[in-house]
Amino acid sequence: MNSYKAPLKEIDFIMNQVFDFEKHYSSLINTDELNKETYEAIIKEAAKFSENILAPLHSSGDKEGCHWTSEGVKMPKGFVDAYQAYVEAGWPTLSMPIEYGGQNLPHSLNVIVAELMGQANHAFMMTAALSSGARQTLLSHGDDFQKNQYLTKLVTGEWTGTMCLTEPQCGSDLSFLKTKATDNLDGTFTLTGTKIYISAGDHDMAENIVHIVLARLPDAPLGTKGISLFLVPKVLPSSIDDKKNFVKNNVNCGSIENKMGIHASPTCVLNFDGAIGYLIGKPNNGLKYMFTFMNSARLDTSLQGLTHSELALQGALSYSIEREAGRSLRGIQAPDRPADPLIVHPDIRRMLLTIKSFAEGSRAFIYYLSQFSDLEKQDDKTASQIMGLLTPISKGFLTECGIESANLGIQIYGGHGYIREMGMEQNLRDARISTLYEGTTGIQALDLIGRKILLDSGKTFNLFIDIIRNSYEDLDDFYTGKLIFYVDDWEMLSNLIISKSSDNIDELGSSAFDFLMYSGYTIIAWFWARMATKADSKLLECDSSFYRLKVETAKFYFDKILPRNQSIASQIRNGSTSLMKSSINDFKEQIS
Amino acid sequence: MNSYKAPLKEIDFIMNQVFDFEKHYSSLINTDELNKETYEAIIKEAAKFSENILAPLHSSGDKEGCHWTSEGVKMPKGFVDAYQAYVEAGWPTLSMPIEYGGQNLPHSLNVIVAELMGQANHAFMMTAALSSGARQTLLSHGDDFQKNQYLTKLVTGEWTGTMCLTEPQCGSDLSFLKTKATDNLDGTFTLTGTKIYISAGDHDMAENIVHIVLARLPDAPLGTKGISLFLVPKVLPSSIDDKKNFVKNNVNCGSIENKMGIHASPTCVLNFDGAIGYLIGKPNNGLKYMFTFMNSARLDTSLQGLTHSELALQGALSYSIEREAGRSLRGIQAPDRPADPLIVHPDIRRMLLTIKSFAEGSRAFIYYLSQFSDLEKQDDKTASQIMGLLTPISKGFLTECGIESANLGIQIYGGHGYIREMGMEQNLRDARISTLYEGTTGIQALDLIGRKILLDSGKTFNLFIDIIRNSYEDLDDFYTGKLIFYVDDWEMLSNLIISKSSDNIDELGSSAFDFLMYSGYTIIAWFWARMATKADSKLLECDSSFYRLKVETAKFYFDKILPRNQSIASQIRNGSTSLMKSSINDFKEQIS
Repeated sequence: MNSYKAPLKEIDFIMNQVFDFEKHYSSLINTDELNKETYEAIIKEAAKFSENILAPLHSSGDKEGCHWTSEGVKMPKGFVDAYQAYVEAGWPTLSMPIEYGGQNLPHSLNVIVAELMGQANHAFMMTAALSSGARQTLLSHGDDFQKNQYLTKLVTGEWTGTMCLTEPQCGSDLSFLKTKATDNLDGTFTLTGTKIYISAGDHDMAENIVHIVLARLPDAPLGTKGISLFLVPKVLPSSIDDKKNFVKNNVNCGSIENKMGIHASPTCVLNFDGAIGYLIGKPNNGLKYMFTFMNSARLDTSLQGLTHSELALQGALSYSIEREAGRSLRGIQAPDRPADPLIVHPDIRRMLLTIKSFAEGSRAFIYYLSQFSDLEKQDDKTASQIMGLLTPISKGFLTECGIESANLGIQIYGGHGYIREMGMEQNLRDARISTLYEGTTGIQALDLIGRKILLDSGKTFNLFIDIIRNSYEDLDDFYTGKLIFYVDDWEMLSNLIISKSSDNIDELGSSAFDFLMYSGYTIIAWFWARMATKADSKLLECDSSFYRLKVETAKFYFDKILPRNQSIASQIRNGSTSLMKSSINDFKEQIS
Repeated sequence: MNSYKAPLKEIDFIMNQVFDFEKHYSSLINTDELNKETYEAIIKEAAKFSENILAPLHSSGDKEGCHWTSEGVKMPKGFVDAYQAYVEAGWPTLSMPIEYGGQNLPHSLNVIVAELMGQANHAFMMTAALSSGARQTLLSHGDDFQKNQYLTKLVTGEWTGTMCLTEPQCGSDLSFLKTKATDNLDGTFTLTGTKIYISAGDHDMAENIVHIVLARLPDAPLGTKGISLFLVPKVLPSSIDDKKNFVKNNVNCGSIENKMGIHASPTCVLNFDGAIGYLIGKPNNGLKYMFTFMNSARLDTSLQGLTHSELALQGALSYSIEREAGRSLRGIQAPDRPADPLIVHPDIRRMLLTIKSFAEGSRAFIYYLSQFSDLEKQDDKTASQIMGLLTPISKGFLTECGIESANLGIQIYGGHGYIREMGMEQNLRDARISTLYEGTTGIQALDLIGRKILLDSGKTFNLFIDIIRNSYEDLDDFYTGKLIFYVDDWEMLSNLIISKSSDNIDELGSSAFDFLMYSGYTIIAWFWARMATKADSKLLECDSSFYRLKVETAKFYFDKILPRNQSIASQIRNGSTSLMKSSINDFKEQIS
């Protein structure tokens, strides 16, 4: 199995050459300034931690998995110590305000650190990412008690967090959520119900777990308008002022799921059997607050798309150089060897460059987004709108790319890819969750075309398209011509879908997925054009295989990946009829 | 988890309505005639066996896996008995000649039986399929001794077979195969070497295993021209005439692989430590003979593509009808229920119909091929050429479809799809091997454009295109227009690739995968046009949800899947430059 190497050169390219993060950081007002030396030192530390502490547990954690016991969930070997080291190094504090024990650094730096750690160990980072979402939710919506008692402990990382939405009868559709909360009239509430698929819902890495829970008050309206948000800790201080003695709360992990992958992340059934909790914010506003958590989780999941593409790239690149099989059809390339390396074969290159274009395109997309997340935190409305528009695209599209990359990573290894010890099959098993949780790709797609474009009357979408169009003059001509074509068609497709949907609302859902994919391919094309333009200018200064490959990968992307949008556009133009004509009864009769 | 149901209605549709298998069977000369009543009875028995004996072991076999012991590999619980029942029912004898204990029925019937059994239990059928390949190889190339001593036992199924090609240093490229065979000058040879990835290489379901092994004689030419084929049994009769007392041969299973899926199929490292074997056919002709085995295995693997699409379809169809979530955007569809069934959502339909179009399109393709396999066995040269052309397409394309279907099957289940007990993730893990073994998709793609089209000067390809063109007048107009466009472009693309490759041979490899996929989408479109035309004519006679869905699925395929060929055609036309321009050294520098 290949050992993970933090892609520091790639990160430098994006942060300092394609974008100007130093300038970006100097412009921020709500967080501390960050010069290049400092952020590079932090990233280097994160790289070391990822390579040395987290990566060695990636395969062993998968093999061993988590253990359910009646006393609680036990993590695989090494995870408790690794988490302790993670806390001691102060990683959870990075972007939190100083008053709650944080370092007040920009959120984007968190994203970059999370990239490295998640690539080293997706399962480990589940707990960290959920805790990060819980921190942001309490910071935005918690009261002073919740912040002082719970947020501070989440900031140090001594305690971890969860997001408790799903119940057995409802996942994507939360309207018939059943968990009940009753007011004890002493500032506390009592929660009863069952939550499933709770990542990091129980484990032995921290002494307390802060569950952020959706539940319904007795007098609440039906549907999603009657959902409130609660903080329910695993253990409670014995009195309100006592921070030392804790009593167990009535939250129990009933079982953990046997899953395809991320075996070292415990996915829990949590039973709230009259558990004590605290209302976050106002009653019946829970779903709104939960979106703070959800948006954080969606950005983290986009990052997982990048993660699985990057891992596929690292594995596939070294294998296609080191493994020898067959001869190039254009003649022997390695005459001193019994066979040529795999990389001489065009079909291996097709797969390798597909992965490379996804991995590096994903990184550009996410780092771009992470700058907007910094601006959003200083209440920049435009940044917030653009985050809203791009989050479903990045979550939906980059995770689909991650799965395709992981799949191709296996394929490049041939039969060896199917064997556990090579690591490529774990990558696909781990990747496979990313298009399912935090809203499936279908949910992201509806969010994009429905909430973010239709309900916004296309305002933010037009704004973003203008940003792209305003960049044309800075890009190499080779790319601009094609970009103009696809961006113009993107605008036309969105208008087409929306105008057709006014007569037939199913046009929206029928084209939502295709439109999301079209959006993703187009945005990644824009980033490749920017990366290649920068690399081209660097090649005027110096000879460099790194920049040459950037330019060639961009050309590959425009030649061999971007044309996918032609089919997608046709599929959208072919409309909803063939999807929706059949009656449900006709389908039902097939299984009777 | 959904229990498997043999798709008998679908099989009837293809065998008796789309194609006329009764007529086909009555025209065969080398095998026994088979009337409709008889073949339907056999298929019904196979369905019962699949549903009742094999399907119950599908999930348990995956969970338990195989066990390596120093005495040999032990199969998971239930497999030994199931195999015994399989033998007792006479299934292995079906299409073998009567003189070796067979029933002399057409090979296509074997294919249909294998469809059902493989769908019920992919891992179980690995042993059966390998044995079938071994039987066909010995029947075609074995001498009388080999046929009398070994083939007869393979026909009854008392003994099973394997195909031993891969070695640690070579898989797709067999030219530097190392296993040695030396002539003992008594009719036997001694084999020494290590083979890996040997499916069913060892197990406790049969008392003997007949390994069909590629090895090199001492004086053999280098490369693939110096490879011979040997029969090496796990145990040997104590003397040449003794069929009762056996001594162990020096073939040992050193270990079994820990794999992503098909856990109940033991994938063995086999050590030949001076094992006794017999030369099959002439020296140095081994690769040619092995192609008998390989072609059989490739057809079986195509069938696995269908298998994983069918399993995804069965799971996804019932789930999308039974699971309730959200409301249709066009208004409440199930007012008496708290939510509408998943199937009201257009994006769920997109995924479901994609799977359905692949599953049923794959079945049509394979049953069509199976008729040619019957004709090939009676030495019909044209049939053999068409089999040669279509085998890489069916193996390569249908397994890619199987993986896409299995992936979408998970997606329709949302988070539940990631959980083992739902069965959908096992389907993807099992499916993932199918594009790797028996020649990767890349190998199939090169075989198609290189050996089957270029080296054949396009003769068979033109013949097949003519078969399609001659059918236009029988098809509904809706389909013909689009078919003409894509079939004409298919021909142009093949001419383009071949003419460009005369200047630059890498054009062949650069477009091979895309051309294979284009071919697959086009052929499946043709079958959907044929199925829909038949269904349309049936709908004139009677009201039927089955036929209505056939027509709607065909329209969906033409609207939403076939347009993929537009992108693929562009990708092919964009040529090889962006794939091949970068130097190997540039890539190497990225990992140094």
